[in-house]
Amino acid sequence: MEELQPVASAFALPRKSRQAKIVWGSCLLTVGGDAPVRVQSMTNSDTTDVIGTAIQIKELALAGSEMVRLTVNTPEAALAVAPIREQLDRMGIEVPLIGDFHYNGHRLLTDYPQCARALSKYRINPGNVGKGDKHDRQFGQMIKAAVRWEKAIRIGVNWGSLDQDLLVDLMDQNTRRSTPWSAKAVMYEALISSAIGSAQQAVQLGMNPDQIILSCKVSGVQDLISVYRELSKRCDFPLHLGLTEAGMGVKGAVASTAAMSVLLQEGIGDTIRVSLTPQPGESRTQEVLIATEILQSLELRSFVPSVTACPGCGRTTSTTFQELTKQIEDFLRAQMPLWRDKYPGVEKMKVAVMGCIVNGPGESKQADIGISLPGTGEAPAAPVFIDGEKRMTLRGDNIAHEFQAIVEDYVVRRFGAHAATAD
Amino acid sequence: MEELQPVASAFALPRKSRQAKIVWGSCLLTVGGDAPVRVQSMTNSDTTDVIGTAIQIKELALAGSEMVRLTVNTPEAALAVAPIREQLDRMGIEVPLIGDFHYNGHRLLTDYPQCARALSKYRINPGNVGKGDKHDRQFGQMIKAAVRWEKAIRIGVNWGSLDQDLLVDLMDQNTRRSTPWSAKAVMYEALISSAIGSAQQAVQLGMNPDQIILSCKVSGVQDLISVYRELSKRCDFPLHLGLTEAGMGVKGAVASTAAMSVLLQEGIGDTIRVSLTPQPGESRTQEVLIATEILQSLELRSFVPSVTACPGCGRTTSTTFQELTKQIEDFLRAQMPLWRDKYPGVEKMKVAVMGCIVNGPGESKQADIGISLPGTGEAPAAPVFIDGEKRMTLRGDNIAHEFQAIVEDYVVRRFGAHAATAD
Repeated sequence: MEELQPVASAFALPRKSRQAKIVWGSCLLTVGGDAPVRVQSMTNSDTTDVIGTAIQIKELALAGSEMVRLTVNTPEAALAVAPIREQLDRMGIEVPLIGDFHYNGHRLLTDYPQCARALSKYRINPGNVGKGDKHDRQFGQMIKAAVRWEKAIRIGVNWGSLDQDLLVDLMDQNTRRSTPWSAKAVMYEALISSAIGSAQQAVQLGMNPDQIILSCKVSGVQDLISVYRELSKRCDFPLHLGLTEAGMGVKGAVASTAAMSVLLQEGIGDTIRVSLTPQPGESRTQEVLIATEILQSLELRSFVPSVTACPGCGRTTSTTFQELTKQIEDFLRAQMPLWRDKYPGVEKMKVAVMGCIVNGPGESKQADIGISLPGTGEAPAAPVFIDGEKRMTLRGDNIAHEFQAIVEDYVVRRFGAHAATAD
Repeated sequence: MEELQPVASAFALPRKSRQAKIVWGSCLLTVGGDAPVRVQSMTNSDTTDVIGTAIQIKELALAGSEMVRLTVNTPEAALAVAPIREQLDRMGIEVPLIGDFHYNGHRLLTDYPQCARALSKYRINPGNVGKGDKHDRQFGQMIKAAVRWEKAIRIGVNWGSLDQDLLVDLMDQNTRRSTPWSAKAVMYEALISSAIGSAQQAVQLGMNPDQIILSCKVSGVQDLISVYRELSKRCDFPLHLGLTEAGMGVKGAVASTAAMSVLLQEGIGDTIRVSLTPQPGESRTQEVLIATEILQSLELRSFVPSVTACPGCGRTTSTTFQELTKQIEDFLRAQMPLWRDKYPGVEKMKVAVMGCIVNGPGESKQADIGISLPGTGEAPAAPVFIDGEKRMTLRGDNIAHEFQAIVEDYVVRRFGAHAATAD
């Protein structure tokens, strides 16, 4: 009989890519290579509203966005960029700004050097830089600005604004094949060759190849997976990953997570954005929260202590454990801006809040700190497990506050400056 | 030069499994084999509350849950099962019930034949059927009930309640290896061999192997991926997939989606549950909504027309398109109970609501029906695209209502009884 082998780790080797350097002031953010997968987002404020935009960028940065993109669509928007950068610097918000350009980026980057300088990266959509013979000239003008100001670029292809000349050309080629490809396969090829071809063109124009990031966004999960698997094989540029036009609420969150998880698990993706349509009144930071949870779920990065909690069932008819879970989650997230520097490593802590005896003690032992609440009919006592050992039992109406104090105490002891075993 | 090949489809071949038949009354639900991936959920009402539980099961079923599990933890709960089944039958809710048993399932299934008969499947946790020499006897008693009543079973292993005798045994074996495995590898092996070993034991006791579904739930995404990849290779039983104790809100939704998407994309998983901890006041149906969105995002199944919407940016400063997106999404979801039978195929329809000129017309053309709203500074006109062609332009304050009427009209024409091209 063949000898049993241990179950293999689920992690794939990450794809090797070049590393881009996103620079602003004296700050540096690396993307690709051995850098962690970066989180980015985009404002939806009017760029000409300097203060409003700076405040939104601050919120996004504090939520965990490591780069923030903003549209630069008019001369007025271009004029607002440097003041936004200055306002952020005054607020001590260290986040690089990415300019999103369509149609007139060549003019704006040429006519407004303060804008070109204040941005740390330019997003160039090769489908929106002009048609026909204007295309190469205007694209070249944008690359010239990136070279002149030593900025990174993202060649950001989107199937909603695909280079139509290229698509028509590939469709023509396809008709001459003995066995023509499907229309979808031609579209995939157009996305990929628009990105890679534009990058090659940029390099020929003097762009440093290390400073080029690529993306090919589509709105279908299977399309995204197909396109990025191929794109990742055909080049070594860092890849920005995102499902475009993902939609709203649960649909947008689930579709983005599904698409990106499959690719990230295969080692594909150096920076991500969740393109969520906010529900009316919903904070723009929701997309950042989802992006950080994707990376944390996949154990690629840690941002906030995670709370394992059971779904509850007929054994847990009181809502106590739902409330305790919510309270502990909100507490942990609220502490993080303070804890991040004070208790390094705390973001990897695992807390469990469980509703009954079935999996409660077992799951609590696997966490750093866990509480197993009593289910219906069980004795009204909640054992607390710390580092896998039962340490105490809570009773009465004040369990929530007592447990929170125990968690806080554990954080100080384990992750504080004098902790013997801080990791 | 090597000839360019079309980009490969992202779909993996689904794993081949046996097919279980879940039967109730004159109804039948298949799981595994060529059946679509099934959605299931679990009540959190007190099982002894017959009416309350029946109402929750109805809500879960209407939301898309094709099986509903409920805890059967006491004699009183066992006595309530048949009345719940009858109540559902009276309400016309065709959904099979699964009994969730721990510790005393052998007694309840023996002492309460009405309960054993009213259930369509028994979930047996081999870690919670008794220790030492009681284990085999009590497990055997449950299998005997399944054979007697011709019911399917799920051998549901959970790392929070893993068979401790088995784990200790595997840890002992491990110390005798020349190169011992990691503790994690031993735990994975314990989960898998608990499931497969219990299934083999059940077959020896006379259980039909086609009627056995397996699960090995853990709360970590990478752990789940590792365990199920191996489990899927070692047996051909249908697999129930779920991240146990996934947690609350965004964390629970994202972690469940991440874990299951990776596995489903590899063709692993015949039925899924999203084990979400409800936020206080949140409907239990939220977990069903997420489960259906996972399957729909991955294009494994279709439940409701999907709305592609852009995230908005500084080009879309009005909230019009957020509101229109929300309105159309809510409208489509609300129509589905009526539309499902009346307009077969409508659940595959794709609608796009876009906020500006950048990707608006392009994305709208790719949808069955799409609207591209004007961004800031654009002419106040919203072109509507149907089947890839621009058909009309909406203007003024009534765009939302007009677009909804256009969508409704399209549904009737394309998916109605007299539609020429209904699919």
